[in-house]
Amino acid sequence: MLVILRLEHRPFRDQRISTHCGLVSRVLGADKIVYSGQQDDSFEASINDVTERFGGKFKIEFSESWKKTIQFYKKKKFLVVHLTMYGLEIQKQIGKIRKNKNILLIVGGEKVHWEVYQLADYNIAVTNQPHSEVAALAIFLDRYFSGKELNKKFSGKIRIIPQERGKKVEGK
Amino acid sequence: MLVILRLEHRPFRDQRISTHCGLVSRVLGADKIVYSGQQDDSFEASINDVTERFGGKFKIEFSESWKKTIQFYKKKKFLVVHLTMYGLEIQKQIGKIRKNKNILLIVGGEKVHWEVYQLADYNIAVTNQPHSEVAALAIFLDRYFSGKELNKKFSGKIRIIPQERGKKVEGK
Repeated sequence: MLVILRLEHRPFRDQRISTHCGLVSRVLGADKIVYSGQQDDSFEASINDVTERFGGKFKIEFSESWKKTIQFYKKKKFLVVHLTMYGLEIQKQIGKIRKNKNILLIVGGEKVHWEVYQLADYNIAVTNQPHSEVAALAIFLDRYFSGKELNKKFSGKIRIIPQERGKKVEGK
Repeated sequence: MLVILRLEHRPFRDQRISTHCGLVSRVLGADKIVYSGQQDDSFEASINDVTERFGGKFKIEFSESWKKTIQFYKKKKFLVVHLTMYGLEIQKQIGKIRKNKNILLIVGGEKVHWEVYQLADYNIAVTNQPHSEVAALAIFLDRYFSGKELNKKFSGKIRIIPQERGKKVEGK
């Protein structure tokens, strides 16, 4: 099981980035996204709407305390991985991480509490350069699942049929 | 040479996503981002600020017309690749695309003009599911460069030293 924890979501400022994090998590093989910060019905609705139309069993949940969420998954023996540009290089660590079937993957917000670095089993960098938590999440998942997640089939109400040019959509 | 074309940027609404696109392009091996839509000094400044502090030769440029930009690079024999969830699966096409050294990679906005699909040599999907142009861009670049871009060294004023826990930064 692979659970994403998105830290300290702020409804107005972070909505688009958090929504991207949720949709990327769903499509690249995660089972659930838990988010802390402020509860945001509109963020939850936008993720659930895509899952309902495009398929899959992806879940979104609000957490009142990121610390309790981390502790909860640690007790369940999940490996806790925190994505941060200050961490160790993903290309050197992913082999070890991949041996674990249950992962809590933490995606930071603007300011990450120092305790997150301490609680994590791995602090992992997708390059030690500033860029995007959405990109770091995507590359982590792609590497963790060795690219196989791209072949995952979703059976939803809507299905997009790959085309050389233009758009082909089945269902609605 | 790999150039990104970000379509139809809107300063207020798209600033964070476009900035993520720019920073991801820089760090994952692209040479330049060109953007159409509305010119945005603050978007340009945020990209140039990172390049100045963290190193590299990445450039950002505004284009008054995405169509002229596409035509310009087509004349220079660049392969034009458009990322869209309606396109052909990246995992089946990347081998052919990788043979080309000069690429114009188009990253859409909310609504993409039908002509973009026609002008592109390849319309490529990173899954045929809705998620994030930032994630699609990141996975495309990671696959195009076969993961080697993660080892790229930047010599800037600031350097982050990978750590198991906490933060280590050299320079300022």
